[in-house]
Amino acid sequence: MLLPMPPTSSLFLMAESREHPMHVGSLQLFQPPEGATALDVRRMFDDAIGVDEVAPLFQKRPRRSISTLGQWAWETDRAFDLEHHVRRNALPAPGRILELLALCSRLHSTLLDRHRPLWEMHLIEGLEDGRYAAYFKVHHSLVDGVSALRMLSRQLSTDADERNMPAPWAPRERAPREPRPRPNRASTAASTISDALGLGPALLRTVTRAINDQSGSMSLAAPKSMLNVDITGARRFAAQSWPIERIRGVGKAADATVNDVVLAMCSGALRQYMQSLDALPESSLIAMVPVSLHGDGPGSGDGGGNAVGAVMCRLGTDLDDAGERLATVHQSMAEGKEALSTMSPSQILAMSALGISPLALWPALRLTETMRPPFNLIISNVPGPREPMYWNGARLDGLYPLSIPLDGQALNITCTSYSSEIAFGLTGCRRTVPHLQRLLGYLDDELAALERAVGL
Amino acid sequence: MLLPMPPTSSLFLMAESREHPMHVGSLQLFQPPEGATALDVRRMFDDAIGVDEVAPLFQKRPRRSISTLGQWAWETDRAFDLEHHVRRNALPAPGRILELLALCSRLHSTLLDRHRPLWEMHLIEGLEDGRYAAYFKVHHSLVDGVSALRMLSRQLSTDADERNMPAPWAPRERAPREPRPRPNRASTAASTISDALGLGPALLRTVTRAINDQSGSMSLAAPKSMLNVDITGARRFAAQSWPIERIRGVGKAADATVNDVVLAMCSGALRQYMQSLDALPESSLIAMVPVSLHGDGPGSGDGGGNAVGAVMCRLGTDLDDAGERLATVHQSMAEGKEALSTMSPSQILAMSALGISPLALWPALRLTETMRPPFNLIISNVPGPREPMYWNGARLDGLYPLSIPLDGQALNITCTSYSSEIAFGLTGCRRTVPHLQRLLGYLDDELAALERAVGL
Repeated sequence: MLLPMPPTSSLFLMAESREHPMHVGSLQLFQPPEGATALDVRRMFDDAIGVDEVAPLFQKRPRRSISTLGQWAWETDRAFDLEHHVRRNALPAPGRILELLALCSRLHSTLLDRHRPLWEMHLIEGLEDGRYAAYFKVHHSLVDGVSALRMLSRQLSTDADERNMPAPWAPRERAPREPRPRPNRASTAASTISDALGLGPALLRTVTRAINDQSGSMSLAAPKSMLNVDITGARRFAAQSWPIERIRGVGKAADATVNDVVLAMCSGALRQYMQSLDALPESSLIAMVPVSLHGDGPGSGDGGGNAVGAVMCRLGTDLDDAGERLATVHQSMAEGKEALSTMSPSQILAMSALGISPLALWPALRLTETMRPPFNLIISNVPGPREPMYWNGARLDGLYPLSIPLDGQALNITCTSYSSEIAFGLTGCRRTVPHLQRLLGYLDDELAALERAVGL
Repeated sequence: MLLPMPPTSSLFLMAESREHPMHVGSLQLFQPPEGATALDVRRMFDDAIGVDEVAPLFQKRPRRSISTLGQWAWETDRAFDLEHHVRRNALPAPGRILELLALCSRLHSTLLDRHRPLWEMHLIEGLEDGRYAAYFKVHHSLVDGVSALRMLSRQLSTDADERNMPAPWAPRERAPREPRPRPNRASTAASTISDALGLGPALLRTVTRAINDQSGSMSLAAPKSMLNVDITGARRFAAQSWPIERIRGVGKAADATVNDVVLAMCSGALRQYMQSLDALPESSLIAMVPVSLHGDGPGSGDGGGNAVGAVMCRLGTDLDDAGERLATVHQSMAEGKEALSTMSPSQILAMSALGISPLALWPALRLTETMRPPFNLIISNVPGPREPMYWNGARLDGLYPLSIPLDGQALNITCTSYSSEIAFGLTGCRRTVPHLQRLLGYLDDELAALERAVGL
């Protein structure tokens, strides 16, 4: 049976090319339970594979044919083949995080098979520190990053003693024991709005106008930069976590939000990185930052959504002082959110579409390298589980997001909070953004510089 | 500087899709030298990577732009990045050949990055038997399988004591110590002929007519079969070697060639495989077998070529007796070669183009599932090195070819002789050709059945 696919979802299929695969990913690190080894965790996954129960979402594949009038639709894959989707990998010696990130970079570079449900789970053994890793890859047409995170959380437990838990891809029947982590409903909102409009030419015109509008919160002019060029298909992924306490400490001392500090860290790191490549633009880089406009409203369930917008944030990469960069970011975010709250519904609509589905809209807008980029990169901050989570007693020890670079947007930074840490996931075009892993060191430098700047 | 690309080469780029990547591959198994381990072999590769010398062929990437009038051309990649091309992998426990073939299946399924030189070398550790493996992948537009094999041989040595040898991808200056294995010059010939004609519509018409011609050696009608349907992007690879002596023994006893016995093995195995799936056609499967028409002639160097044709071979899969299948194959091949030798030059031309570049021509012919397939599968037999070869003392212990399935051609069988063995490499669409690895057992069964049939 064919089920219709929302236009936003099919846009992700249509916009995909070998230069920009349209899947998101996450890297999970598991600490084996007391007295167990990484291979015991693998054995638990092996057992889960043996059960062969798969959630309906993970059984549907895209289909386009004459019977669907050329439109993309979903259908259940009747020859579903779990072994294709769940794969065993191993790290070459010495099995450091370096080798793990190299493997994830490669796994994230390849296209999913469109004849099958659009996901892969890669189980990874051979980490020298005794942990077990999993890289999960899912097409953006199936779920967005936020939903993927939410789904993952649902398959885990806050109870370290729970056993006989189903596989991450299996149907999850039981009610959650704890309140679910509250997801950012960005994408749901975008889907709802875009669906209502059919994402037609009118919407595209509105968004294009908004992008080119030189007034209001969109007035920031992003400089041309090395990040705003056409990209290639190979990816480089780098990731690292920092304690929320350190970031919150800086925020408290400077009267800024955690998100401001995250953005300031990115700002300082990008400045240092681009300086090292002799590629720092004279004026500040502008980041596009998706933000929630309101708190929970009616219809905040899975099917509803809240108004969500995008703030264009001046990162202050032209400033030499870490404290000044944080102040610039804080002011820019505050002004941007203020501007958003006074926008008309249609303006918010345009912003929403822009802010939430830029990945889908981007290729449709056909921005070229000769134009000024509307912004230099997207930096998202997605809230994840607040408590430590477990799968059959194995503690989820780290959770790192992988996102989607695009032509004109060669680097994506997505942050995820989990338990007491914030993980930074950097996904870049391997050719356009060289030595991406150096950004991790620069992020660390910048957090220390911010602490010094606020007197910690 | 842009260099023109021959039309046949660019055809491989144009015909490529996510369903049928157009690269060939080879799997090599190395036995470490006396007293050394697999990790020592890896260290030799690490050292070779450190030298960072790359042959010009492996530095050129395809390029198409307004300045090339939209035609594909070659240019040197000025940002060449060896680390992208040579990658370290490891097998999950227990590291059997099963895990190795699964990894190669996956590596062979993904597209090469077109912004870079079109090859990847995957170094693979973790084989439980102490050997070290390498999977080499190269786009058919850069070299064909025969040339790839020849190139590989040149980088190896027959001298087990030679050391300080360059990497397989490095320039190889010294003269070969032994006469080179004589390659099948199929592809070179095809390139020359096609180039002369520009591979225009006239040639396509000629080939199409030849395919549909119901007289001469093309008159065999191939039945519809499970192999002749549209395919998906995921691959399954299976491979195994048998001693040439056993195959030659059957041939001698039955007055047949080694190639006849190889084809009869494929016939019996395909019969058993399709029977197990309840999918055996009533009439015999027809294999397209590339053959050399003449011995060495003038212009047999790298730039020239010999006349080469394709024989449509009745495999006898409708026959219950192994001996009868071998007799059918033998007769069919003899008649086919006889017919070829009496063809007019233009007919040979058509056959050559068909026989040698079917992979390139196939998508251009746009054969649909509703038509009868011109043949059911391609079975090639490519001669490799006759003596044991070594790289820095590590003995090349096995050499297995991976080829290209296509829409309508879901399974490819390529055989390679090396030293005292013949390797069968089966590359199939993972979805369309289920349980491909079972064919290995059936091939083994059939060799034993043939030995019994001829009284060995």
